Amino acid sequence: MMEFKRLIPYREALRLLLDDLSELNEIEELPLSEALGRVLAEDIVSPIDSPPFDRSAVDGYALRAEDTFHAREYSPVELKVVDEIVAGEESKARVEPGTVVKLMTGSKMPVGANAVLMQEMAEREGDIIRVLRPVAPGQNVAFAGEDVKKGEIILRKGQVLRPQDLALLKSIGFRTVKVKRKPRVGIIVTGDELIEEFDEDALKAGKILESNSVMLKGLVRQYFGEPVFYGVLPDDEEAIRDAIDRAKNENDLVLVTGGSAFGDKDFAHRFVRLMFHGTTIKPGRPIGYGERVFIMSGYPVAVFAQFHLYVKHALAKLVGAKNYEVRVKATLTERISSQLGRREFVKVWYENGRARPIKKKGSGIISSLVESNGYIEIPEDSEGYLEGETVEVVLY
Amino acid sequence: MMEFKRLIPYREALRLLLDDLSELNEIEELPLSEALGRVLAEDIVSPIDSPPFDRSAVDGYALRAEDTFHAREYSPVELKVVDEIVAGEESKARVEPGTVVKLMTGSKMPVGANAVLMQEMAEREGDIIRVLRPVAPGQNVAFAGEDVKKGEIILRKGQVLRPQDLALLKSIGFRTVKVKRKPRVGIIVTGDELIEEFDEDALKAGKILESNSVMLKGLVRQYFGEPVFYGVLPDDEEAIRDAIDRAKNENDLVLVTGGSAFGDKDFAHRFVRLMFHGTTIKPGRPIGYGERVFIMSGYPVAVFAQFHLYVKHALAKLVGAKNYEVRVKATLTERISSQLGRREFVKVWYENGRARPIKKKGSGIISSLVESNGYIEIPEDSEGYLEGETVEVVLY
Repeated sequence: MMEFKRLIPYREALRLLLDDLSELNEIEELPLSEALGRVLAEDIVSPIDSPPFDRSAVDGYALRAEDTFHAREYSPVELKVVDEIVAGEESKARVEPGTVVKLMTGSKMPVGANAVLMQEMAEREGDIIRVLRPVAPGQNVAFAGEDVKKGEIILRKGQVLRPQDLALLKSIGFRTVKVKRKPRVGIIVTGDELIEEFDEDALKAGKILESNSVMLKGLVRQYFGEPVFYGVLPDDEEAIRDAIDRAKNENDLVLVTGGSAFGDKDFAHRFVRLMFHGTTIKPGRPIGYGERVFIMSGYPVAVFAQFHLYVKHALAKLVGAKNYEVRVKATLTERISSQLGRREFVKVWYENGRARPIKKKGSGIISSLVESNGYIEIPEDSEGYLEGETVEVVLY
Repeated sequence: MMEFKRLIPYREALRLLLDDLSELNEIEELPLSEALGRVLAEDIVSPIDSPPFDRSAVDGYALRAEDTFHAREYSPVELKVVDEIVAGEESKARVEPGTVVKLMTGSKMPVGANAVLMQEMAEREGDIIRVLRPVAPGQNVAFAGEDVKKGEIILRKGQVLRPQDLALLKSIGFRTVKVKRKPRVGIIVTGDELIEEFDEDALKAGKILESNSVMLKGLVRQYFGEPVFYGVLPDDEEAIRDAIDRAKNENDLVLVTGGSAFGDKDFAHRFVRLMFHGTTIKPGRPIGYGERVFIMSGYPVAVFAQFHLYVKHALAKLVGAKNYEVRVKATLTERISSQLGRREFVKVWYENGRARPIKKKGSGIISSLVESNGYIEIPEDSEGYLEGETVEVVLY
């Protein structure tokens, strides 16, 4: 019963471990097309105005807005086309009163023009266009620096790079980008009860097919890491200690499953100087952390909760990631109750603005994870939420 | 102005192209740890009950519930511990009246027992435990097949595989899984105005740094595909035709940017028998599709909208993916108006249940994509939404 005396509040444990970890210094410089999903290692300052000049936002006719102020459908204004250019070309013509230049979306505005009439709004005959309505100054013009201004911070350190971020970098002249190195995460799975190959007799005799390794590898990859698997170990004190020592040396973080409880054979926690062992979360209470090692549960559902409540945030800290969670508001479809003093990790199915709690309980019931797509955290001071209440769901 | 006569409604165009594409037949069998994010190619039927037997859901004492019915704090029931097992072991003892077996979470229930008392609820002295409160029949027992039942479909074809899905597969004996081959997607970027290397003079003269390729590569990867880049081509009729022909032969889908409008130099669309050319979307109206080729805009914001409104769904069809979008409900922070007859792609920033429209307009303004994390579709028959209205946001 010793864990009950040591339970420390969720947030305190989280603060302890995040304070214990430092952001990685190592940076990789990657070609833009290899940087998807990686974490930006520095603020990006634009070296240029983009666009670098006033340009047309549509295909049409660059003109002087004041020439069109009297244009009416019953009394069109006629203007003369003095030049026509295609994309990437620049008109050398000057737009004098009574004249226009035909250009394309993105074309540089010719000297003298201050607005663009959309192509389909003009009636054209030969080199004359008829304008039926006034055009306002600045209409359909994209001004220099409207996208990004020279010297402006356009992406911040910690941004998880998306396709559009890479496009913005490319559009201002970048060909490579500096991102954080991926943290290496050692994974050690322990337990005499575990088997790796299907064996009906062994299963009937009480053995269990090991599934934490593939789950943790996937979770580590989802949250910026590079998993390194050290295998499934029996409850052998020496083997576990050696593996933990080796993994600590070779990785930025180590995850050990099994051995977090206080049974006679749960000794993984003895080989690490733990900052805490046992927190107020449910499931997953007996989690321990120290020396960059997490001693986690052996039960998949508890491991999953421990990962999302603790390990995910540790990985984000290592790379300095900011936008790594999707939190949405939802209406709860039915009441959920929770024990005071426990932070409950409640699996839900989020759809269409509603969150439905998954009824299946039990820390070995992996199908409850499969049937969910997010979770709610019920804090320690709450007895739960009512049907119809608005809750925050973290999607996974 | 010919595109105005040919505009077909968004949904009709989408149906035409989805009907034109067939799901890929090719399947890859991958080790579970390589299948993250891939699309399941078949329904998975569980070959076993999991758990295969009734087991304890906690660390504690297996007992006969009826032995505890009279237990009270002021008058505890004393029971005798006749066996103790560790994880993965099976007790051969029979739980007779007045006796218990100490076991671990996951242990097989011994014959005769029908409930488990949590370890911390028992007071133990030697081989005697004192029970202070009654235990209900079935309490803390995980029954055979409670996670998954033999013959049950536990994952459906089209599931995008997550860490927990892989864990469930592993827990019922799978070591590999059949997923759809990644669609190969050829990308061709066209336009005389495009440059690939930063060149201040060229930019000042009206050239533009090409950014569609890196954006499309990223988007294709996000939505199950393998991008194949055919380079940036000038507006050269023969070069573009050759590249499209080659890309069509070598890929499942081809994306051509630039050349979708109706200018003299926009001829990409002439080399493909298009099923439609021009739909009611804004931005991105002049998109064309035929023969597994999309003729897209040259402007990044329009390309991004075209990808999400059309290409993403085409890729999902090719692999038969089901859960490939995150749609959330949000309260709109301010009014947005839209033209009747147009399906508007409105970029928003979603946070904390609220969607804030991004004001920056213009199809070249990539920063408007960077500042957003999702979009709203305003359908053709709507003039927009009011401040405070509930809208559906697709997150990206």
